[in-house]
Amino acid sequence: MLWLDGNRVEDGAALFPAQERGLLLGDGLFETLRIERGQPLLLKRHLQRMEGAAAALGLKPDFSAVEDSARKAASDSETASMRITVFRGSGPRGLLPPKTVDHRTLVSISPSGPRQPALRTVIIAETRRNEGSPLSRMKCVSYADQVIARMEADALGCDDAIMLNNKGEPASTSCANLLVKTEAGWVTPPVEVGLLPGIVREVLIEKGVVVEARIGLEAIRIHPILRTNSLIGIEPLELEGGPVAEPRDYAALTETLIAAERDEA
Amino acid sequence: MLWLDGNRVEDGAALFPAQERGLLLGDGLFETLRIERGQPLLLKRHLQRMEGAAAALGLKPDFSAVEDSARKAASDSETASMRITVFRGSGPRGLLPPKTVDHRTLVSISPSGPRQPALRTVIIAETRRNEGSPLSRMKCVSYADQVIARMEADALGCDDAIMLNNKGEPASTSCANLLVKTEAGWVTPPVEVGLLPGIVREVLIEKGVVVEARIGLEAIRIHPILRTNSLIGIEPLELEGGPVAEPRDYAALTETLIAAERDEA
Repeated sequence: MLWLDGNRVEDGAALFPAQERGLLLGDGLFETLRIERGQPLLLKRHLQRMEGAAAALGLKPDFSAVEDSARKAASDSETASMRITVFRGSGPRGLLPPKTVDHRTLVSISPSGPRQPALRTVIIAETRRNEGSPLSRMKCVSYADQVIARMEADALGCDDAIMLNNKGEPASTSCANLLVKTEAGWVTPPVEVGLLPGIVREVLIEKGVVVEARIGLEAIRIHPILRTNSLIGIEPLELEGGPVAEPRDYAALTETLIAAERDEA
Repeated sequence: MLWLDGNRVEDGAALFPAQERGLLLGDGLFETLRIERGQPLLLKRHLQRMEGAAAALGLKPDFSAVEDSARKAASDSETASMRITVFRGSGPRGLLPPKTVDHRTLVSISPSGPRQPALRTVIIAETRRNEGSPLSRMKCVSYADQVIARMEADALGCDDAIMLNNKGEPASTSCANLLVKTEAGWVTPPVEVGLLPGIVREVLIEKGVVVEARIGLEAIRIHPILRTNSLIGIEPLELEGGPVAEPRDYAALTETLIAAERDEA
C-alpha cells in the first residue's frame, strides 16, 4: 500500500522522474515504524527526529501533511511495517539543490505479523560508519554503506553486521542500535560514535534502563549484546560464538518499550 | 535527453517505481563524463571503473549494452555532459537485495559549452569522507555526504568544499580530486585516504605528471591546489586567501589530459 504526497496510489502508479534527487544523489530522509491496531507506534518521536534531520539538510516538507498521511495509511492495518520517505524533489544536474523544489512524500505499508524476537547471528562488518558526517546520525536515503554491511553478513550466513566507526569503536548494526550488558548494566554508545539516535534506544535511555557509554570491540565480544529498532523491538545477538543474553537479562527492557508504545499512542 | 535501458525516452517518460532500491536506499552507481564531437571522452576508462565497482556491489548490468547506450546517446551532441547511472532495481522491504533483480540503466545528456576553467573558491567542509567504506572509492548513488559538503560551501559563498577523512587528511573536494603543488611536484592523495580514483587523476598519474602521496591539512594551506574531474578538466582553487596556481604551473597537466582524451577516443 502506497501513499504519495497524501494520496493513496496503486502499487505501479507511484512513479518518480529521472530528475528526482532522491534517485540520483540519495537526497532524502526516511523513518521506519511499526503499526499496531491501526496506530503508528511512537509516531510523534519519529516525526520529531525526521524534522530535526530535515532542518539540518534544508528539507522543508509540510510535516502536518506527512503526519496526516502516515495516520491515514496506518488506519487500515492491524499489524504492519510503515516507511515514511521524504525526497528532496527534482533538480537540474549538479550537487546543489535548486532554490525552490517540490519535496515528495512516500508512505508505504508492508504486511507484518506480531514481532518475533529471535536470536540473530552477527559478524563485524568491514564497512565502517562515518562518524565524521552528520548523516551518520540521520536516516538518510544514502544508505548503501548499510546495504553492503548487510550483504557482508549474508555472505557469511549471518543475519546482521555490527559496524565499527573509523576509530574501530562499535557503533550499531546495519539496521539497529546496539546494547551491551556490562557490569554497570545495559549500555549503548553515544551518537557521536556515528550512529542513529534510534527511537527504541531513546525510550530505553529516557526510562533509565540503558545508559550511554563508549564501548570497545573487546566489550562486545565478552558481554551479551542486543539489537533494537522500531520494527523488531529488542533481539539478542550472537557474535562468533560469544555469550548470548537470556530473555530474563532483558525482560525489563522489553517491558519498558511495550509500556512506552502503549502510553504514547 | 534521456535513454532508459537502451531506449530514447522523452523527459517526463523516464519513470522509476517506488520500489526502486536506487530511490529507497541509494543503491546504484554512476559515472559522469564529457562529450566532444559526439564522442564520450575516455569512455572505456569510465566503464572499466564502473565495472569494478559493480562487481564489488554484486551489480551485474549488461555492460556492452551500457556502452552501446552511452555511444548512441552521445552521438547527437557536439559538446555536452553525460551521466550514466546503473540502479540495482526494485526489491521488497529490507536491506538485502533480492536474488534476482532487473537493473535499470539511465543515460542522461545535459547541454554544455566548452570547458571554462576558472579560479574556484573553496572551504574545508565539516562533513568528512568515510575512508572506512569501499563506497568512498566508488561513484555510488548514496551521494548525500557530497551534497551537504557542497551546501556548506554555498552557505559561505564558495564554489566547492575540500573534504577531509576521519583522520583529518585532505581527500578530495565534493565533486573532484585534489592536486597539491609541493616541492616534489604535483601530488594527490592515494585512494586509501577515502577518495574516488578519478579518471583525470588516473591519466595524470599514468603519464607521470602527478604522483600519489598522503598530504596534511597544512600542505593545502601553504601550497597552490587544483581540482580535477572529467567534466571540468583541471581548475585552480583558492582556499581562504591561500596561494593560487598560475596557468603556467599546471599547463603541462592540462596538455597531458587533452592529449589523452584525443588519443583514447
